Amino acid sequence: MSKPVNIGLIGCGFMGRTHSNAYRKVSNFFTTQHRPVLKAVCARNKENAAEFARSWGYESVETDWRKLVERKDIDAIDICTPNNTHSEIALAALKAGKMVLCEKPLSMNAAEGEQMARAAEAAGVPNIVWYNYRRVPAVTMAKKLIDEGRLGRIFHYRAVFLQDWTINADLPQGGTALWRLDAAAAGSGVTGDLLAHCIDTAIWLNGSVDRVSAMTETFVKERMHNLTGKVEKVGIDDACAFLARFKNGSLATFESTRYARGHKAKYFFEINGEHASIAWDLHDLHRLEYFDHRDESQLRAWRSIHVTDGDHPYMGHWWVPGLQIGYEHTFVHQVADFLQGLDDGKPVAPTFRDALETQRVCDAVLESAKSERWVNV
Amino acid sequence: MSKPVNIGLIGCGFMGRTHSNAYRKVSNFFTTQHRPVLKAVCARNKENAAEFARSWGYESVETDWRKLVERKDIDAIDICTPNNTHSEIALAALKAGKMVLCEKPLSMNAAEGEQMARAAEAAGVPNIVWYNYRRVPAVTMAKKLIDEGRLGRIFHYRAVFLQDWTINADLPQGGTALWRLDAAAAGSGVTGDLLAHCIDTAIWLNGSVDRVSAMTETFVKERMHNLTGKVEKVGIDDACAFLARFKNGSLATFESTRYARGHKAKYFFEINGEHASIAWDLHDLHRLEYFDHRDESQLRAWRSIHVTDGDHPYMGHWWVPGLQIGYEHTFVHQVADFLQGLDDGKPVAPTFRDALETQRVCDAVLESAKSERWVNV
Amino acid sequence: MSKPVNIGLIGCGFMGRTHSNAYRKVSNFFTTQHRPVLKAVCARNKENAAEFARSWGYESVETDWRKLVERKDIDAIDICTPNNTHSEIALAALKAGKMVLCEKPLSMNAAEGEQMARAAEAAGVPNIVWYNYRRVPAVTMAKKLIDEGRLGRIFHYRAVFLQDWTINADLPQGGTALWRLDAAAAGSGVTGDLLAHCIDTAIWLNGSVDRVSAMTETFVKERMHNLTGKVEKVGIDDACAFLARFKNGSLATFESTRYARGHKAKYFFEINGEHASIAWDLHDLHRLEYFDHRDESQLRAWRSIHVTDGDHPYMGHWWVPGLQIGYEHTFVHQVADFLQGLDDGKPVAPTFRDALETQRVCDAVLESAKSERWVNV
Amino acid sequence: MSKPVNIGLIGCGFMGRTHSNAYRKVSNFFTTQHRPVLKAVCARNKENAAEFARSWGYESVETDWRKLVERKDIDAIDICTPNNTHSEIALAALKAGKMVLCEKPLSMNAAEGEQMARAAEAAGVPNIVWYNYRRVPAVTMAKKLIDEGRLGRIFHYRAVFLQDWTINADLPQGGTALWRLDAAAAGSGVTGDLLAHCIDTAIWLNGSVDRVSAMTETFVKERMHNLTGKVEKVGIDDACAFLARFKNGSLATFESTRYARGHKAKYFFEINGEHASIAWDLHDLHRLEYFDHRDESQLRAWRSIHVTDGDHPYMGHWWVPGLQIGYEHTFVHQVADFLQGLDDGKPVAPTFRDALETQRVCDAVLESAKSERWVNV
Repeated sequence: MSKPVNIGLIGCGFMGRTHSNAYRKVSNFFTTQHRPVLKAVCARNKENAAEFARSWGYESVETDWRKLVERKDIDAIDICTPNNTHSEIALAALKAGKMVLCEKPLSMNAAEGEQMARAAEAAGVPNIVWYNYRRVPAVTMAKKLIDEGRLGRIFHYRAVFLQDWTINADLPQGGTALWRLDAAAAGSGVTGDLLAHCIDTAIWLNGSVDRVSAMTETFVKERMHNLTGKVEKVGIDDACAFLARFKNGSLATFESTRYARGHKAKYFFEINGEHASIAWDLHDLHRLEYFDHRDESQLRAWRSIHVTDGDHPYMGHWWVPGLQIGYEHTFVHQVADFLQGLDDGKPVAPTFRDALETQRVCDAVLESAKSERWVNV
Repeated sequence: MSKPVNIGLIGCGFMGRTHSNAYRKVSNFFTTQHRPVLKAVCARNKENAAEFARSWGYESVETDWRKLVERKDIDAIDICTPNNTHSEIALAALKAGKMVLCEKPLSMNAAEGEQMARAAEAAGVPNIVWYNYRRVPAVTMAKKLIDEGRLGRIFHYRAVFLQDWTINADLPQGGTALWRLDAAAAGSGVTGDLLAHCIDTAIWLNGSVDRVSAMTETFVKERMHNLTGKVEKVGIDDACAFLARFKNGSLATFESTRYARGHKAKYFFEINGEHASIAWDLHDLHRLEYFDHRDESQLRAWRSIHVTDGDHPYMGHWWVPGLQIGYEHTFVHQVADFLQGLDDGKPVAPTFRDALETQRVCDAVLESAKSERWVNV
Repeated sequence: MSKPVNIGLIGCGFMGRTHSNAYRKVSNFFTTQHRPVLKAVCARNKENAAEFARSWGYESVETDWRKLVERKDIDAIDICTPNNTHSEIALAALKAGKMVLCEKPLSMNAAEGEQMARAAEAAGVPNIVWYNYRRVPAVTMAKKLIDEGRLGRIFHYRAVFLQDWTINADLPQGGTALWRLDAAAAGSGVTGDLLAHCIDTAIWLNGSVDRVSAMTETFVKERMHNLTGKVEKVGIDDACAFLARFKNGSLATFESTRYARGHKAKYFFEINGEHASIAWDLHDLHRLEYFDHRDESQLRAWRSIHVTDGDHPYMGHWWVPGLQIGYEHTFVHQVADFLQGLDDGKPVAPTFRDALETQRVCDAVLESAKSERWVNV
Repeated sequence: MSKPVNIGLIGCGFMGRTHSNAYRKVSNFFTTQHRPVLKAVCARNKENAAEFARSWGYESVETDWRKLVERKDIDAIDICTPNNTHSEIALAALKAGKMVLCEKPLSMNAAEGEQMARAAEAAGVPNIVWYNYRRVPAVTMAKKLIDEGRLGRIFHYRAVFLQDWTINADLPQGGTALWRLDAAAAGSGVTGDLLAHCIDTAIWLNGSVDRVSAMTETFVKERMHNLTGKVEKVGIDDACAFLARFKNGSLATFESTRYARGHKAKYFFEINGEHASIAWDLHDLHRLEYFDHRDESQLRAWRSIHVTDGDHPYMGHWWVPGLQIGYEHTFVHQVADFLQGLDDGKPVAPTFRDALETQRVCDAVLESAKSERWVNV
């Protein structure tokens, strides 16, 4: 009854670990016919790949992703490499008829993303992008509450994604661990890395973005480059903030930076509707803050919902009420939903096409920051 | 030894009450030679004025502010009337040689404010604007920590002032209680009412604003007008958000609205510096959130400082550690500082000149929202 | 129309200030026919008394409380002196036909308190004890919610009152500022000072206490005595905790200490009922935490009610929604209610009789700590 | 290099799942020579066992634990069955020379526990009890901070474990899911189930308990019994609270109940020392609250440490700073430490002997509740 899905994972970094963990755990907690099999892992450095395979139980190892993509025993390619490689790998994998699970952001820019989305549609294979925060139970619940109409007309959306890990000017750029600081590998800085998450969630919860006005800043102008060994100009945005108007008439502010002392990974968003408001913070991801104006007047208040009950999204699969799950579970949920989509023969969001919309907003944001004008998405 | 300062208060609304309370209490808690005397209160409606005088202990009543301004027994004029009257009253009071304490915002626009600041300087009398939030002990402490250099270079400033009291489309505009919804009386909506507070604090804490890009929105386009009895176009901004670059190189976002469900008066700001960060929320005004990266690594964390100790700003004058003061005390502190300034013969901030800078930012914000371009302050 | 109530205040310490402030403010915010007049203040040290009178506007000064009690122009005696003087002063004042407002705890023990309650009833004059925390709006609201039956059957009550100001072993005992450490003046330590507050609130909210099992501890066994200049044995309890069973069948834990680092004045209580629970913390006294199991299942959560709306207890008299009041306002509320009681000719709780019940519990607690047995109240 | 440890798991309930998940994950995140192998699972119902084996990847199935215990290919027996079976199974497993990992509480009472501890010592095999909360990173860090002497002399310990899932009087007792309500299977109610956790942590952090005074209550006196089909007297304690004195001179309060509305699994403890205090709440298990009096005076405050950094206990094995782990990881940590102990040839706490001390406190608590006297442990 069980239908194996042979996974070929490319990239052994942080995301390689989160995805591998998800594949390993999913069938202990979710019941689907399709079940992932850890068939092969690919990394340029053979030892790294072998060590990763041992840790996670991959059956085989590759050092050339082109070879992996062509292997007959692989059903799905999971792309966990730097942003500048997504497009080439995905196009090759799609051409080879593989399903593709691509780490976010989809691409270096919208043009590249458009090509990828078209290729995925032409190939007619399941494809998905790892915007994992959609599947934090509290965030999924926010979506549910909005879809039930509980907020009414939306007036405001605000999101920040704040970190502080690059304040040190001695931190180099480029190479294995620090490619996120290298514009050539990452495309952009916080815009593609962090705001892409905020934008993906926002579009999902609040619909399409119409126009943006943005500013970016690079606080540390030069950093040693790990690949060249020279001090080089930093090409990424250290910080980015933008105003937005959504198609539904709501106003929004977005901000991200890696220069906000005290915040390791503070992804926070809040939505204010006519009747109710919602807020969420990644630092306490198991809670959803909810205010409903229709409550009895004297008792109106923000509620801090501990999203750990059996009737909360995904939580019936885990432990008992009151007991938290964490960051890694969002990836398990995405795999579970993807597998369920295979069972049902239905696409699961966010597809390449869905993720492309985020890419368009990112492009508009970066263009606006450069031109200092409002830009239509 | 006690030197009386005879106060003539104009306006019996919400601010008339907060100021009167401050004058009455200040000398129970602060020791200054100059002491306020509640000499006269002025309101167009005589009964209201008389009732107010009875409640608060004013010695006399006027119904024409011009008469009050001319009274020989009045030393200081306190302006608590709608924004569109500030300039005329202040100029007359200054001409009559009175000290002036003017409710915020200073004026309808920067041009008017410039006139007022010049007149105040020409008159050479003490003058101050009631940006009371500077004197929340936690906010004053933020200023102290910044001035001590604890934050280092500032990277980010963000502030919101969120309310939800005008979501109801049936709420009328204009008249005594609702002049804040009437553009003719208020000049602008949240920009002058709420963002002015955020901007005043920001300039105080973070220096001058260089450039802004803004958007505004009026969600309810028409409301019944209390003065005309007709449904009229709403001229104020219900919401306003803007990006800003400060002269010190830091980036900022500001947002204010009266359409954020769940927030009665959420004035929140956060400052991220190289070494430390600070955050504050009016809803829990007795707390200052503080993060210092120089703390021992494993113990680094946001601290929620309960600003109620004797060595916290202003707090030695009140009760004992652990016991909160509230909103009204910010006005007492302002009066206390103003009186101390009289004792010392020194101006006390924010003067008209100081407040004018906020006015310039507000003008730039409104202009940017209209032109959809970045505007220099 | 206004009916003056001439106040004679005895004691110029911390409580003298909170009460004086309440008398001065009450009529600015509450409309009663009876209005306090600050007639006289009494302290043994004449200069202190005079300075206090100047600060607060008392018309006259006494140095002998017996004289004050006999003055014909005094209507009400307010006792703000150490615990060991309450009884003698109150009995004399009652004998002289004065109303009495007595600082808590009522007395050194229940026997003394019984005498005082009887004398008050015999005198037939209004009498009240300053258990001010009943009149924190959030606490008053808790009472209202319980009385409305929202909690259903009560299962649990828990309260702590934690401080940390006596950990320093070099702190002396006795004398003006530190009489609370001197058993001769205070009767007991945290039991009478802090637990008395917890017990008063608990009886008010949850009914009578049936039985208790307690333990006490004196961590610092000897301290220099300010009055004798010698190191003397410390007679008070530094910490006290007790189990209790209420007459309504609920179980309770109470704990107080002055050795809990990090807590300046953490009075926290929580009540768990069949349907709903309530919690409150003096450190954020403007909030009431409320959980209602009858809420829709997926949205069930603790609500943090910002008790600052016009329909919250007492709050319609103050500012606008979202703006906090503080510690001092609890005393204003007590005076307001007391004056309203005079207008209505009705006693206002907690009377001496009411406060006596707290005294009985305190006695039982101290006895249980000594005997190491359960003691019936 | 890898040394397999063949696990035989008995019991397929909630704990069977948490342990199985831990065995499966541990080697993906922790590097030890010993590695668990899911050899066999045992449950009375064969279908359940088979289904469980399929879900978790156990190689074989047993329905008689005696048979499992005798199997040559099993190295370690993991006991996840109701409390009344622990002793018999453990003794048999030890006799067969197996390592034993026993779910908490160790036993029905101290006498039984003593026998088990002796048997374990006689057998000379590794043995451990699943008091998993010791290995929440924030709790482990509390231990570290205490051991470093940061708190100084301890004055106070307080702990609660609050739940609300048995308030419904229609809930039956006994049988597979509800054996915790059946005194015959569970031994006691909240004392053995929840307070045992609190006591284990307390002894670990604060040393031995000297004396206790306790009370217990059974709010719902009768419940339908799932095994007999009849309404039967409820023998467990629904709630239990006790006072304690520790051998180090500190005072403590403990309370647990399943009748505290609003709390799903609120295990909270706080420790107050001479210099610093610590608090932790299972509902936000990734945070440790810390107050240090040696901080600069004006900045003294409770810090909310987000225990997700690489230098926090266990966290270097997981993701990146700011990203939470959850409840299940505590079991992974226990397995990791147990395996490391095997590598090192050293016992890992809490052993049977360690857990016996908790059992003795539980016995004293229950005896005190019955006798209404203080009882020495």
